[in-house]
Amino acid sequence: VKAAGLSESRALAILQEELPQFGASTLVGIGDDAAVLQRPSQKLVWTIDACGEGTHFKQGWLSPEDLAHKSLQAAVSDLCAMGARPTAALVQLTLAPWWTVSRLRRLAREQAAVCRVLGCPIVGGNLTRAAEVQLVTTALGQLPGRPLQRTGAQAGDELWLVGAVGRARLGQRALERGWQKKSQLAACVGAFRRPRALVEEGLRLARVAHACLDVSDGLRRDAPRLARASGVRIVLEESRLARLVDQDFRRAADALGLDPVREMVDGGEDYALLATGPAGRRPRAARIIGRVERGRGAWLEGVEGRTELEGGFEH
Amino acid sequence: VKAAGLSESRALAILQEELPQFGASTLVGIGDDAAVLQRPSQKLVWTIDACGEGTHFKQGWLSPEDLAHKSLQAAVSDLCAMGARPTAALVQLTLAPWWTVSRLRRLAREQAAVCRVLGCPIVGGNLTRAAEVQLVTTALGQLPGRPLQRTGAQAGDELWLVGAVGRARLGQRALERGWQKKSQLAACVGAFRRPRALVEEGLRLARVAHACLDVSDGLRRDAPRLARASGVRIVLEESRLARLVDQDFRRAADALGLDPVREMVDGGEDYALLATGPAGRRPRAARIIGRVERGRGAWLEGVEGRTELEGGFEH
Repeated sequence: VKAAGLSESRALAILQEELPQFGASTLVGIGDDAAVLQRPSQKLVWTIDACGEGTHFKQGWLSPEDLAHKSLQAAVSDLCAMGARPTAALVQLTLAPWWTVSRLRRLAREQAAVCRVLGCPIVGGNLTRAAEVQLVTTALGQLPGRPLQRTGAQAGDELWLVGAVGRARLGQRALERGWQKKSQLAACVGAFRRPRALVEEGLRLARVAHACLDVSDGLRRDAPRLARASGVRIVLEESRLARLVDQDFRRAADALGLDPVREMVDGGEDYALLATGPAGRRPRAARIIGRVERGRGAWLEGVEGRTELEGGFEH
Repeated sequence: VKAAGLSESRALAILQEELPQFGASTLVGIGDDAAVLQRPSQKLVWTIDACGEGTHFKQGWLSPEDLAHKSLQAAVSDLCAMGARPTAALVQLTLAPWWTVSRLRRLAREQAAVCRVLGCPIVGGNLTRAAEVQLVTTALGQLPGRPLQRTGAQAGDELWLVGAVGRARLGQRALERGWQKKSQLAACVGAFRRPRALVEEGLRLARVAHACLDVSDGLRRDAPRLARASGVRIVLEESRLARLVDQDFRRAADALGLDPVREMVDGGEDYALLATGPAGRRPRAARIIGRVERGRGAWLEGVEGRTELEGGFEH
């Protein structure tokens, strides 16, 4: 398969040019059968994540630069949720026939920029071709302390949110309607296209929180996962979520005719961190959005009572 | 998206049941945001590889069990080519709508079996849905000695082949024609479906070879890569390749009306190891198939002279 003058060796040459193998721990980088890294000084945290056309975005929604941000930040976010610092990544890049040399160079150049900010070089990967573009990113991190798991939430904990939720979802709704140019929606479209992994925030949480996960599928799906893993009940307080709605978010929701708090509960892909921890230990960046009780399941508590949230693909 | 009663939480439960988190180095396995591994005692070798419907196989060519073998062994083969021992893997699993609970269980059960043989547990991964099945596997290994790179071949080296080439290609040809039931082709179909990563062979090569890669795309493409990376000329000797054609391979080639030596040169996906090293240091499992000279490019030398092989997607 050959696409727009983009042979495999040309593609590899572009990636090697644009992705600097910085980091003293990279002994063998792009171009061999595998990457070789110096022996790590701490425990390893390791994740894999997919970002694909059709599944995660539609053609035209993301520029090559946006793809660099979305794919890398989403993968690194998993490391943040464990309290790790990212150190290196590999990318399985599936190129569609319509990808040009110029698109590949723009992608790689922005990957290099994102990697520099994250301190996480792309040290290798693999190239394939298919009908649709896909990036599968695996990231390694090192763990300065204990791992921050999903299993440690305790009855009596506060429920903490670090980062925003719902913005990426409004951004996706805007893209679905072709409204990405509306000024009220620009920030949300940006949140969908270029989420930010919360590296320092995750490291800080790891010192005080009892449990944590990243909100990739929305509080509605991820809060029940946290409850299940820890064997506790999670209660999201609607009034506390409502207090986090700022003017810009409300304007964006209004432009789309959507309820802001509902979108905060349903919206994933912002890669906020949802954690639980003891009152009095809450980091400055964390906002209280509920509490942990004895029992089961995740519940949304409003003025009219509690409704249960249910997770996964089931609903 | 919901397929054949296979919800995300059900799929995850099946994977957790079937994939035992053996290995003392796994501190956190399947089910959290990321896996956590004990601090390694050696340098790390790290790779990623894709195995997808449409690109790498057609629907009906591979059973769920075959998919377990093909995806894991291909990824681990990259570690073998660097002289590393595999230690753990993550799998990004994209499920097609027609995948049932039973297919997923068969896949996971066989993955567990393959992992046990390789000493390389699957410690985590990610689930997505799309129109076609795909497994992207990332594998980590540890390096007992120095990395065996593509860059070290020297003029005067022997060219060594460890493992067979061409069999997987004949198997693929058989599948393309629907001839997988023909007895002469069964072994080659098996080679395509269930290749074997050469772990011990790679470790042995690492102690004596100057350069190595795994033949995933065929000698025709991979020999020029080795020549380019090392800045040498690789000469494949047709007469030596012809001597490696055994009766079964000849019968399979005959059944398909193909020339056995040509198929050995063109065929990838057997995951043989192509290495170079000094005469007198050749491991018992390695067969000499040519030599390394000063110069450029990879050449096939026959009775009628030399023809240049060219690599990558270009030809």
